[in-house]
Amino acid sequence: MSNPIPENPDYIEYIESHKDEYEKDLFELLSIPSISSQTIHEADVARTAQWICDRLTSMNLDAQIVETTGHPAVFAQTKNPNPDLPTILFYGHYDVQPVDPLNLWKTPPFEPVINDGFIYARGASDDKGQMFTHILGPEAWYKTTGSMPVNVKYILEGDEESGGDAMDTFVRNNADLLACDCVVISDSQMFAPGRPAICYGLRGLAYVEVIYKGPNKDLHSGTFGGAITNPANALCKAIAGVHDDKYNVTFPGFYADVENIQLAEQERLAGLGIDETEFLASAGVTDSVGESGYTITERHWARPTFDVNGIISGYTGEGSKTVLPAVASAKMSCRLVPYQDPEKIVESIRQYFQDACPPGITMEFIVHSYTPAVIVDVNNPFVKAAAKTLEKAFGRSPEFTRDGGSIPIVSAFTEALNSPVLLLGWGQITDNIHSPNERFCLADFHRGIKASAILLKQLAGIEPKSAGKE
Amino acid sequence: MSNPIPENPDYIEYIESHKDEYEKDLFELLSIPSISSQTIHEADVARTAQWICDRLTSMNLDAQIVETTGHPAVFAQTKNPNPDLPTILFYGHYDVQPVDPLNLWKTPPFEPVINDGFIYARGASDDKGQMFTHILGPEAWYKTTGSMPVNVKYILEGDEESGGDAMDTFVRNNADLLACDCVVISDSQMFAPGRPAICYGLRGLAYVEVIYKGPNKDLHSGTFGGAITNPANALCKAIAGVHDDKYNVTFPGFYADVENIQLAEQERLAGLGIDETEFLASAGVTDSVGESGYTITERHWARPTFDVNGIISGYTGEGSKTVLPAVASAKMSCRLVPYQDPEKIVESIRQYFQDACPPGITMEFIVHSYTPAVIVDVNNPFVKAAAKTLEKAFGRSPEFTRDGGSIPIVSAFTEALNSPVLLLGWGQITDNIHSPNERFCLADFHRGIKASAILLKQLAGIEPKSAGKE
Repeated sequence: MSNPIPENPDYIEYIESHKDEYEKDLFELLSIPSISSQTIHEADVARTAQWICDRLTSMNLDAQIVETTGHPAVFAQTKNPNPDLPTILFYGHYDVQPVDPLNLWKTPPFEPVINDGFIYARGASDDKGQMFTHILGPEAWYKTTGSMPVNVKYILEGDEESGGDAMDTFVRNNADLLACDCVVISDSQMFAPGRPAICYGLRGLAYVEVIYKGPNKDLHSGTFGGAITNPANALCKAIAGVHDDKYNVTFPGFYADVENIQLAEQERLAGLGIDETEFLASAGVTDSVGESGYTITERHWARPTFDVNGIISGYTGEGSKTVLPAVASAKMSCRLVPYQDPEKIVESIRQYFQDACPPGITMEFIVHSYTPAVIVDVNNPFVKAAAKTLEKAFGRSPEFTRDGGSIPIVSAFTEALNSPVLLLGWGQITDNIHSPNERFCLADFHRGIKASAILLKQLAGIEPKSAGKE
Repeated sequence: MSNPIPENPDYIEYIESHKDEYEKDLFELLSIPSISSQTIHEADVARTAQWICDRLTSMNLDAQIVETTGHPAVFAQTKNPNPDLPTILFYGHYDVQPVDPLNLWKTPPFEPVINDGFIYARGASDDKGQMFTHILGPEAWYKTTGSMPVNVKYILEGDEESGGDAMDTFVRNNADLLACDCVVISDSQMFAPGRPAICYGLRGLAYVEVIYKGPNKDLHSGTFGGAITNPANALCKAIAGVHDDKYNVTFPGFYADVENIQLAEQERLAGLGIDETEFLASAGVTDSVGESGYTITERHWARPTFDVNGIISGYTGEGSKTVLPAVASAKMSCRLVPYQDPEKIVESIRQYFQDACPPGITMEFIVHSYTPAVIVDVNNPFVKAAAKTLEKAFGRSPEFTRDGGSIPIVSAFTEALNSPVLLLGWGQITDNIHSPNERFCLADFHRGIKASAILLKQLAGIEPKSAGKE
């Protein structure tokens, strides 16, 4: 890839000459098992927050650990901000997903290694590695100029992977503290290796757990089979009914607020020239089923879904055991698209599974989390500045893409701060995020640092709004 | 309950006066964790076999540990048998079911305790406790008379709960060794507390495991959801399709060889006056669904079924994880009725789940075990002698019942030895076999010992067939 001409030799050269230190520091960050959904790792999560807070303090920022309803977060900001400069809020999360099935990892998830140009570790791509680039880019400005060309703020959380809404609550309760002209987030993927992207759409999420309770204990399947309602059979039947023959989701009102994909967007998505065979191959399959009438790209970027995330019932150990299970439970989630109301969807799911309970079964229903989808206006000056930045850092103008995943906090930012959100992903779809052997392209880590530094310069010229003092 | 007049004071009095020793010895037997389906307990299974072999040797029987394709079995027989006397083969199994979920046990499964007149321990009822009565009854004859009124043989196995066919193979390969005039088995339940039964029908079993494989790893359900076939959704859909709206099983040809329940049997079953509300209550439910057109009793005694015994896929740990699972697997079984061919059923199940695989899913199919159903002719002299025995030992004439469970070995006996099988269960339906807190009624343990001793006398007068030398 052609190396862009640096506009400010100092900070670019500084970045170029500190690659080894940057990798060493990232490894240190990745080695802390900050799994936010498992209480046993609570101290590790806190330790990670402190590590980051110390780093931001060393950049002459006013940094502190802030309490939330969940794990601690890190907040930092420019000391004595200049009201004539725009304020950029960097968001990221330092917590990671659980690591099971551990036996499928080729190297220990919290012992980072570099192999074939990739950094392998849990959190390398989602999101510690991407988040860290936005610490190192601005740091390069400070180390080389003693200042930064914009006012910066950081809010880095430890609850993103736990499905909690701690940061959502924090953002809505601290709109003044977080007030800014735009939010920058790198927690998504590039369009393809070497092809940067600006993601303008995210799907929402409604994640629930349904527990079907039958007999008061596991029963002998011979003595009782045929006479007693089997909760595992009942739950499978209920789950099966969620999709009709065309793979449409049957929850009442599920599509009521869904806007059909516009022709212009259909064409833009098609114009990306995505090789769907290659996409399927990246998941190790040669074929798939899904909602009829849509391309595979449309299905996972712009259409709502229903997936079982986990299910368990009865005897699942070695050998066989002839039991009729007492309980069956499933963790399930819907990915949502713009204008679907997560609360209405969750209630529709609850009602569906309640109605699907046959005689002899009672239901327990747990709502793990929900968040709406997000669409970003691609015509604001910050998006244009970001596009210019990516062209300089990656030597190629970005694609405009959507992402099937959810970043719950983004809707909180758009709603509470009324600021545009720049989703600048440095990851790749083959990064195995949420899977064994998560990885992050080493070159993109370094390009990301450079992009973050260049972005400050690109955004510096934009007129700030009266910073958040509404 | 009225105590029957003993015909032979000696052995009855001996039994009456040794209750404490019998309980102590049973506790010792129950304290060995002989879980045959878990390799970690292999030594415990072998130790149990030796314990039993020593006991039979002490009764002046020619006893030995015999190798099988699975765990060792115990074989014993009368030294120098009298050809003018019938030969009775006692069968039982000394292995037990796994104990999980362990946290639901009120007392440790392998530390027997007596509470409210019940012995609590894994194997108390299924089958160590029942099996042991047929050692103690004949032992009383030997201790009081120095001999027994019939020739006895014992074949006691350690593979019944592991779903293996080791004993089935052993029986078919050793028909001469096991040749006898009738087989006596106590591994089932009485009709009700204090109401003994002779069980003339057992259901068969076809136990398989289906593994649906999708992507080559757990995927991010946002990045991939909607685009990639979800193996958990696919498996649930396939399982749901096994039952139609009337709860009939849809495997092709499933009912082809099923004989409808005859009116006479319908009436006999109805005549038992079973309280189905009470039956459901024993499982902790107030209602249930099942094959339409049949009573609950008919459904679990005389009709074939399909039940999920266990299912697992994706993330089932604490909290939530947004994965699209790579694999989903289910252990499932059909209970079979007379004339259904287990091999044909297994093949039909395999074909069904293969056909149900959607694009993007491949199937792995494991056959854990299968065995045909059994029906015993209630008009042979051994059954009549057994009925008389039960009346004497329990003070009440037996009910003629069926059982929804399977005793795979029974079909091997009927086919290979061509001898009638007496299914004389001392257990109760509330014994929690295969469940936490398994138990066995203490009084029935002692009545069973008495019955076993009386049975020898009742059978003594029956003309032996030329013992097995066909």
